[in-house]
Amino acid sequence: MASTKTASNVAAPTQFLQVKGQSYAYRRFGSGPGLPLLFLQHFTGTLDNWDPAVTDPLASGREVILFDNAGVGRSNGTVPETIAGMTAHATAFLDGLGIRACDVLGFSLGGMVALQMVQDRAAIVRRLILVGTAPRGGEDIMHLEKPSLAHRIQDPSNRGYDVLKKIFFTSSPASQAAAEAFTRRLSQRKDDLEPPSGPAVAGAQMAAFREWEQFQGARFAELGSIHHPALVVNGVHDEMIPVHNSYRLSENLPNAVLVTYPDAGHGSLFQFSESFTRLAAAFLSADSEWAVF
Amino acid sequence: MASTKTASNVAAPTQFLQVKGQSYAYRRFGSGPGLPLLFLQHFTGTLDNWDPAVTDPLASGREVILFDNAGVGRSNGTVPETIAGMTAHATAFLDGLGIRACDVLGFSLGGMVALQMVQDRAAIVRRLILVGTAPRGGEDIMHLEKPSLAHRIQDPSNRGYDVLKKIFFTSSPASQAAAEAFTRRLSQRKDDLEPPSGPAVAGAQMAAFREWEQFQGARFAELGSIHHPALVVNGVHDEMIPVHNSYRLSENLPNAVLVTYPDAGHGSLFQFSESFTRLAAAFLSADSEWAVF
Repeated sequence: MASTKTASNVAAPTQFLQVKGQSYAYRRFGSGPGLPLLFLQHFTGTLDNWDPAVTDPLASGREVILFDNAGVGRSNGTVPETIAGMTAHATAFLDGLGIRACDVLGFSLGGMVALQMVQDRAAIVRRLILVGTAPRGGEDIMHLEKPSLAHRIQDPSNRGYDVLKKIFFTSSPASQAAAEAFTRRLSQRKDDLEPPSGPAVAGAQMAAFREWEQFQGARFAELGSIHHPALVVNGVHDEMIPVHNSYRLSENLPNAVLVTYPDAGHGSLFQFSESFTRLAAAFLSADSEWAVF
Repeated sequence: MASTKTASNVAAPTQFLQVKGQSYAYRRFGSGPGLPLLFLQHFTGTLDNWDPAVTDPLASGREVILFDNAGVGRSNGTVPETIAGMTAHATAFLDGLGIRACDVLGFSLGGMVALQMVQDRAAIVRRLILVGTAPRGGEDIMHLEKPSLAHRIQDPSNRGYDVLKKIFFTSSPASQAAAEAFTRRLSQRKDDLEPPSGPAVAGAQMAAFREWEQFQGARFAELGSIHHPALVVNGVHDEMIPVHNSYRLSENLPNAVLVTYPDAGHGSLFQFSESFTRLAAAFLSADSEWAVF
């Protein structure tokens, strides 16, 4: 199916792809000389959680494809309890679309799926953008039960997007103003919305995080064989997947540039969407074997 | 004194500034809308160690000012044994030139002087670029005696720039090719050269590194009061001042963007001069209170 004409996640219609009895919800919009860019989403996030300030500027140079993995939003089926299971769905989806090569932007959980994808199907991925994520064997991955996060998540006064404002951003006035702008942007889409994720999605994805923390043999060794150019991005105050996980990625991936943002948490790409999309577009447009742009 | 017309470190004449009985050797070239950019040099480096592939592109948007601190090159006097002492000379030099505000690019030792300068004379610095450097209290700063460095530095077959090729770059073919290109660029300047630094310079600067490793009170606490926009850059395989020092800078400076380069050591700015100067110019041109560009 072709890219839709409305190059914004505010208005792009949700489409459905049937692959072997599985139905995947997705949106596809934008155009330009670049390869399609697949977006892989964070814990419990759906198509509606992609900030138009991130998707839309990137859609001006290429098609962007937003995707709900199995069991998320209006994609049917069961949420896998492993990153490998989610990755199998993501590659089946790309195969179903007939996409033989693309760039991938993985955020948080989505970054782990992106890392697994380049190991399982190296040829389908050209360039990787990994935001607020961790390698297999990373530490302190999405421990929402730890006190620093739990007291914000369980605050009984939380309404609507309040939790995202508290856990994707820092408590500084500047970061909280960016949080407000972020949630306003998410609220712009009024129709054709995805159902929010419930406890079953959260539980299965949390199991996948726990499995991803395990490793065998030399920690991070598998990263050494991923030669895809990678751009690794994180906020220095990310409490959900701390920045040291991004350090381990950029140290162990042989071809990765790291960018960190100040006064930013897990949602650094949303807080600094203008900078992020400018740097990401420069990285994606580089015609080189090297990540350096 | 005005900027010279030859906007390249290959040909810019060395000038001398007299301040209170002290003579400072410097070069000043380039033009454009930006504030002057002061370059602060690495261990034992002189004006002749500044790669034209770094200085010249930046000189197309602003004046660049290269500077030999006291006792280095043809600057007379004694090399201070503390960063604070070197900083006093750097600010006296700026005052002598009548420069009331500038941007500063500090590499390695020079980055420490830059950090001290924003603490001692905050108003004279607008934006900071800190490459391959460390905060006070950083760890593993320039321990040339450690076996991994010593065996390269003491190799009896070393000639000319061989040591720099071995300690500023990694052993990969790509990095060594960049090392070769770097030393070819340094060799382009044929006349009006600085004398290479001898053991007295090295000894005093090494004493300054040892003093800089000491800290009192809460480690890195003083960085919290530096609100200058900062761009922190490092190669992930820097063995002279390991990248974790750059992590501590970008985590503790409240307004710093970090960029790290793959397959690069201490000389990442020379290895990836095209990317580095593009990012540095974008950072310097940003008209914002924020480091994010």
